[in-house]
Amino acid sequence: MDSLEKRIAAARGETPADIVLRGGRVFDLMTGALLEGDVAIVGDRIVGTCDSYDAAQVIDVTGRVLVPGFIDTHLHVESSLVTPFEFDRCVTPRGVTTAICDPHEIANVVGAEGIRYFQRAAPHLLMDLKVQLSSCVPSTDMETAGAALSAEDLAGLMDDPSGLGLAEFMNYPGVIHRDPGAMDKLRLFEGGHIDGHAPLLSGRDLNAYIAAGIRTEHEATSETEAREKLRKGLRVLIREGSVSKDLHALAPLLTEVTAPYMCLCTDDRNPLDIGEHGHLDYMIRELIRLGTSPLAAYRAASLSAAEAFGLKDRGLIAPGLRADIVALGSLEACDAKLVIVGGRMVDDDAFAARGHVEPVGRDSVRAPSVTATSFRTTGNRNETDVIGIRPGQILTDHLHEEIAIEDGDKRPDPARDLARIAVIERHGRNGNIACGFVRGFGLQAGAIASTVCHDHHNIACVGVDYDDMALAATRLGEIEGGFVVAKGGAVLAELALPVAGLMSLDPFETVRDQLVELRAAARSLGVTLEEPFLQLAFLALPVIPALKITDRGMVDVTRFEIIG
Amino acid sequence: MDSLEKRIAAARGETPADIVLRGGRVFDLMTGALLEGDVAIVGDRIVGTCDSYDAAQVIDVTGRVLVPGFIDTHLHVESSLVTPFEFDRCVTPRGVTTAICDPHEIANVVGAEGIRYFQRAAPHLLMDLKVQLSSCVPSTDMETAGAALSAEDLAGLMDDPSGLGLAEFMNYPGVIHRDPGAMDKLRLFEGGHIDGHAPLLSGRDLNAYIAAGIRTEHEATSETEAREKLRKGLRVLIREGSVSKDLHALAPLLTEVTAPYMCLCTDDRNPLDIGEHGHLDYMIRELIRLGTSPLAAYRAASLSAAEAFGLKDRGLIAPGLRADIVALGSLEACDAKLVIVGGRMVDDDAFAARGHVEPVGRDSVRAPSVTATSFRTTGNRNETDVIGIRPGQILTDHLHEEIAIEDGDKRPDPARDLARIAVIERHGRNGNIACGFVRGFGLQAGAIASTVCHDHHNIACVGVDYDDMALAATRLGEIEGGFVVAKGGAVLAELALPVAGLMSLDPFETVRDQLVELRAAARSLGVTLEEPFLQLAFLALPVIPALKITDRGMVDVTRFEIIG
Repeated sequence: MDSLEKRIAAARGETPADIVLRGGRVFDLMTGALLEGDVAIVGDRIVGTCDSYDAAQVIDVTGRVLVPGFIDTHLHVESSLVTPFEFDRCVTPRGVTTAICDPHEIANVVGAEGIRYFQRAAPHLLMDLKVQLSSCVPSTDMETAGAALSAEDLAGLMDDPSGLGLAEFMNYPGVIHRDPGAMDKLRLFEGGHIDGHAPLLSGRDLNAYIAAGIRTEHEATSETEAREKLRKGLRVLIREGSVSKDLHALAPLLTEVTAPYMCLCTDDRNPLDIGEHGHLDYMIRELIRLGTSPLAAYRAASLSAAEAFGLKDRGLIAPGLRADIVALGSLEACDAKLVIVGGRMVDDDAFAARGHVEPVGRDSVRAPSVTATSFRTTGNRNETDVIGIRPGQILTDHLHEEIAIEDGDKRPDPARDLARIAVIERHGRNGNIACGFVRGFGLQAGAIASTVCHDHHNIACVGVDYDDMALAATRLGEIEGGFVVAKGGAVLAELALPVAGLMSLDPFETVRDQLVELRAAARSLGVTLEEPFLQLAFLALPVIPALKITDRGMVDVTRFEIIG
Repeated sequence: MDSLEKRIAAARGETPADIVLRGGRVFDLMTGALLEGDVAIVGDRIVGTCDSYDAAQVIDVTGRVLVPGFIDTHLHVESSLVTPFEFDRCVTPRGVTTAICDPHEIANVVGAEGIRYFQRAAPHLLMDLKVQLSSCVPSTDMETAGAALSAEDLAGLMDDPSGLGLAEFMNYPGVIHRDPGAMDKLRLFEGGHIDGHAPLLSGRDLNAYIAAGIRTEHEATSETEAREKLRKGLRVLIREGSVSKDLHALAPLLTEVTAPYMCLCTDDRNPLDIGEHGHLDYMIRELIRLGTSPLAAYRAASLSAAEAFGLKDRGLIAPGLRADIVALGSLEACDAKLVIVGGRMVDDDAFAARGHVEPVGRDSVRAPSVTATSFRTTGNRNETDVIGIRPGQILTDHLHEEIAIEDGDKRPDPARDLARIAVIERHGRNGNIACGFVRGFGLQAGAIASTVCHDHHNIACVGVDYDDMALAATRLGEIEGGFVVAKGGAVLAELALPVAGLMSLDPFETVRDQLVELRAAARSLGVTLEEPFLQLAFLALPVIPALKITDRGMVDVTRFEIIG
């Protein structure tokens, strides 16, 4: 019997189902009711609800509430610092059964081959990984990336079954100013899903951006910003990453009225945060704690996400849909006791039975040799542009400080929390090194450095000691990229990320432990930020206002130009 | 400049828009807010809202509330008794800017050529007519239709741009019993939109039907039935046709919680009803009068409909979406003062400027000659199956009456409201004539006859006088099909429907006037039903319980078999 006939026969009770979940209640996201009855599964599909069924395998879920698997509507798997396989193992047990990813981090290092790695990995995972195509590689022309993707390149990647349109169109100035390359990409995906990224865009410029065909957006950081976007037809994805944390600001907008048109996403979240707080499960829990109705929170986490992205085969526990089911202790706790994804139980055996795909992007760190003198910087006057960090946000402030030139160099000043920041081109293209100032780390000694540096993923290094900066940057080349903390001529802690300088080859638990060590080491230098490496990573992203730095220099994002 | 660049430039205010609506308020269906500001249109798209714009044409809509154009999610244009062009002229000015039609009436008469007629007409209309492909032609094997459509036939019709999946799968027994032809059609459209039709289906049979891939359904006639369907993931389309009127029963289920997943449809609605009460505008008005929140009502009428059918380019007044806009005097009155569809003003000039498509299905009535004796019927015992009409519903009751056999015939008995009903095959295939009894017309004299007879569209004739029945049926052949009322050997009133015996060649106003005359003529025979021809049309539809009649005999729909 073909699977269609099998499903129908089992749904009628003529033949036993493969799996039956018995004793739980289904949280129906269309009506808000808690429904009694068995849930019958055949193959990868739910076939019956609200009735009694027999099955080869009956699972007792007495006392549990069953909700549809969660959908992360926008994330970069690379930000978990592990491969898609480890990401799967890390978050699927928390109930995340679909993740809509943009592989633009790896694409910026190794180009289309990085996207193909994700496409090849997708069918082997337990979760359903949707791989959008990266729209902005590089994110702007104000940086040196390892690769560039044109509309033509994207066209060659479009027919993979994991596809779900064009990923976040970060080059919003390119859209509203009608840059020909941007127009080509928009035309290529016209009528399909085009995801957005337009922080603080408003008024007629926002209208123009949306009129270009953008449907979803996750950069709103205030209720006002999110409300304007929603009123103009953009589906708002509430983001709670490891750095960008917008959930508290946007929670008031998520009501039963708006929930059908709002979703949740993590964008960039590391295993430390996932381990300590959670993933989408954390967002749901926190929303309910803040007063959001459970119906609104769970809709945003699944049904509304499915609708926003046209995934008509999921988002509810209902006949005919994918068997993506999370059994919870309670709606409030959002504590996944059992997860079924595509009809398969999520457990160690299932993870162990997955196939393997060899990672790409090894030996990708090809930076120039640096020494202490590489980090000297000067200028024509004492007034100096300084990047002002906002803890827990990727937006920065554009500060102006008086810094005297001494001995032909503007020196870091720990007393005023003014650290040197440098970006070193590491793709073997031009050996650029740009230096500037940053405030907000609290750094009193040593240096930290990283190859996770959005989106070009050059080496970003922050320090108050040039020798330690040189040491940290050099060490990154030896370990194929990653994170390094150095002080007094010694490496205090490090994490190797040999897959494109972005992802570890180790299990996520190992990475989590190393992140704990790195965090402690950074604190020993005086760092006050919760997530110094993640904050550092976004200081080089010139599509987020207001002041950033790339290998080509300091970037005034508001004016979208390099200022020195 | 390409249209994409044009839209972006106008949205930013760099160039004037084509049209600006000024002075109105936009009812935002995502947040429920009433938004101030101009609405700017370029080509067929909205480009800007909530801001000020210039344009070649500025339209003053001061005091108006602007809502997205309405979407009729399921209807048979043929039931309007006019061509798609006249249907367009009849309902688009009421704010219906998208209609998702199933051309299965004409397909039952002339097959694929009937569907192609609608596909050819669609691009010439002002409204956006989506033409689903008819799943059940004929609806069952218990009737003789003029044509049959296999999965292979449908495959040949699939690539038309008007397509939107498979139309209502009425053969629900074929689905749940896994009829091979039904399975082929479901497989052909797997993953796409498959519309449903499953009156009174419940429990595991309903699960089986939905598990087969059905997404939307419009046959629920009670709140309980609709709630079960909704809980099992079916999008419920509330129907208010000329016969089937479910709006009052289902209105309590349409709340702000459920509205994102419920839609409105008319299924079968004639120009008389449209003229007297309205179309979707009537449904919205009536819902609000019954206490439904305007947000829920207008969502169901547009945004939720767009979502349910994956029409991502409409359903809101927002940048980038189709400029389908209705300017209302008030939300409560739902009185379209101005309608814009695809960026075009709906007025006489716009209708006059449309192209023309020659109708198909002329000279389609090829019935056998009938005389008074053709309508005699008998049986082995006095107990007789009688179709019991429910006024305003297409469901019927299966009654049992004692009717004595006299002179080898069971005669009609007006005193007990027992009329003869006959169905005469009229496609020139086999000349079948089947006779039975019906209660509910109130007929005291004469006969009425029609070639609009779902879905095979044979001749249906009800009478208490065999000579008048023969006259009425014969007259239908002379006028190429339509409606006839006869009494005392004379035709009292008639309406010719020369397009497949289903649609007039006249303007809808003429048809409306003729329906008024027909209704008066039917009343003069004693008919008590509000819509006798529409009720008659559904008495031959063997996919709606409980007792029906086709050219092959009386059909017990509950058991899905011919009983004599």
